[in-house]
Amino acid sequence: MTRFASLDELRAACLDLPGGHPEAAAAVARRESQLTKPPRSLGRLEEAVAWLSLWQGKSPPRLANVEIVVFAGNHGVTAQGVSAYPAEVTAQMVANFANGGAAINQLAQVADAELRVIALDLDHPTADFTQAAAMDEAEFLEAVTSGYEALSPEADLVVLGEMGIGNTTAASAVAAAFFGGGGTRFAGHGTGLDEAGVERKREVIDRALDRHRAILGDPLRVAASLGGRELAAILGAALAARHRRVPVLLDGFVCTAAVAPLAKLREDALDHAQAGHRSAEAGHRLLLEELRLNPLLDLSMRLGEGSGAALAVLVLRAALACHTGMATFAEAHVSGKDA
Amino acid sequence: MTRFASLDELRAACLDLPGGHPEAAAAVARRESQLTKPPRSLGRLEEAVAWLSLWQGKSPPRLANVEIVVFAGNHGVTAQGVSAYPAEVTAQMVANFANGGAAINQLAQVADAELRVIALDLDHPTADFTQAAAMDEAEFLEAVTSGYEALSPEADLVVLGEMGIGNTTAASAVAAAFFGGGGTRFAGHGTGLDEAGVERKREVIDRALDRHRAILGDPLRVAASLGGRELAAILGAALAARHRRVPVLLDGFVCTAAVAPLAKLREDALDHAQAGHRSAEAGHRLLLEELRLNPLLDLSMRLGEGSGAALAVLVLRAALACHTGMATFAEAHVSGKDA
Repeated sequence: MTRFASLDELRAACLDLPGGHPEAAAAVARRESQLTKPPRSLGRLEEAVAWLSLWQGKSPPRLANVEIVVFAGNHGVTAQGVSAYPAEVTAQMVANFANGGAAINQLAQVADAELRVIALDLDHPTADFTQAAAMDEAEFLEAVTSGYEALSPEADLVVLGEMGIGNTTAASAVAAAFFGGGGTRFAGHGTGLDEAGVERKREVIDRALDRHRAILGDPLRVAASLGGRELAAILGAALAARHRRVPVLLDGFVCTAAVAPLAKLREDALDHAQAGHRSAEAGHRLLLEELRLNPLLDLSMRLGEGSGAALAVLVLRAALACHTGMATFAEAHVSGKDA
Repeated sequence: MTRFASLDELRAACLDLPGGHPEAAAAVARRESQLTKPPRSLGRLEEAVAWLSLWQGKSPPRLANVEIVVFAGNHGVTAQGVSAYPAEVTAQMVANFANGGAAINQLAQVADAELRVIALDLDHPTADFTQAAAMDEAEFLEAVTSGYEALSPEADLVVLGEMGIGNTTAASAVAAAFFGGGGTRFAGHGTGLDEAGVERKREVIDRALDRHRAILGDPLRVAASLGGRELAAILGAALAARHRRVPVLLDGFVCTAAVAPLAKLREDALDHAQAGHRSAEAGHRLLLEELRLNPLLDLSMRLGEGSGAALAVLVLRAALACHTGMATFAEAHVSGKDA
């Protein structure tokens, strides 16, 4: 049983989005202007606190319950030789997550965040999308539902991440479907393809775009035909967060491609989301620009797992600590700007 | 009594610099290659761990004792109307630091770092450098010594910061002295000057450069004539850190200008230092480029106090947590790259 009975029902849910709480953001801005620093001198830290507040409706905002949700999926398109790693690594890495041995485990601990990993039918990869739609409608809606229902009611902030051998190929195909330029524009080295591998990946993407050209104008069909289960789940989780007005940090290229259909359906659909970082995967810069997302960090990371976004949690925690802990000009007897 | 009896003695100390410990960095790289992630996929996090290790000579490196040292000074050039805030704010902010009310107090806590604030003769501002050298040789060497002796023997990492109304004017003058372009190239809005204020600041810098043109070829005389006590102390602290092979995180424009004389004296003098962030103060981007420093963060901050560099400590802590906590491919039974 899925939450959304049809693509039409999901589409309607994607169009029915609440706005934020401007009064909470305004309260944050009032306090910010009284703190002992030149106006706006904390730059994006100040903006981040206002943004958290806008969506949470709390002033100050809270970061007591930060949840990192990592979705994992397998991809039939790996049959085309588009990854430097064998497909079984997806399940092996899910086991590594469970045992606490991956990068995201360490980063979740540093960020004082809860980590949840949701493996999506790893034994049944999606179809090879050079041959057929990656998922039929039922499979797609099931994956979206997994994501939609993944958030706990207590979450103050959700960090979305993914694991899936082959999924930068899916992300590139989705990005190219929406923003043009084909495999040449969006395919990159992924986990470490050589030049011949990237060339093959480009060609695979272009073949897929050609095969599915009839549905490229429908964002949800693009997600079903060219995406993957973990991408669909990320879309569902981001949608659920918006419906509940929970702020979201997006990770890298795959995660950003996963939510792109939401932005294609409604331009302001990602206002509750920030890009945690810009990844070294070349297509991510282009995709962020297309979606007008300004990443918090740019550390040449390209791991996925939610790793870049988990690091960005540290920036938000620091921002909130300044906002709540600093003295005002009056409290500290510090003179303001010269008249 | 100063540690350096003359500018010549200080200059000799600036030229006599140890290198790092490549064997420790190599040990870090060996472990890094076995961790469960594609090679180099943690980007600058991996580089940061190797860099810490290179200077500390430890594998893994340690971040048990992170010290933030903030130097404060007053500037005679404020008489020229180059700041949006009155000069007494320097001392007021030092009191705010002592009471825990400033941004750097909150950030030090989040970064689990010790904060030390060293106020340098605030009751006696440096001379107005449009009229005379900011400091005579004795004053300059005393300030350098304050910084040189500020590091504790236990420091694993030193974060340098500053506070001083008027000090972006000093920093701009120093930067322009070394890299050309005058006030037009390096003067910015500082703590919030309006356009007329920035124009005045440019003109003040150009007058100072003209007055001191005879000494512009001597990096230490530039620091004494156009800098300030807190800049001199930062130079001293960065030099002491190098002599003891302790890695350093630099904060924004003023801090970077403060260490620029070291790089002018010896090209590799800042190899033990990283730029914690790129500030929104326009001159900082140019100065970082001139010094070939690649900042870790870029969050449109322009507060000083060591705030941007303190945030970068979080990145280093996250990097170290990944390096020490992640499982290897063998431990986690994860397959490596396809042959």
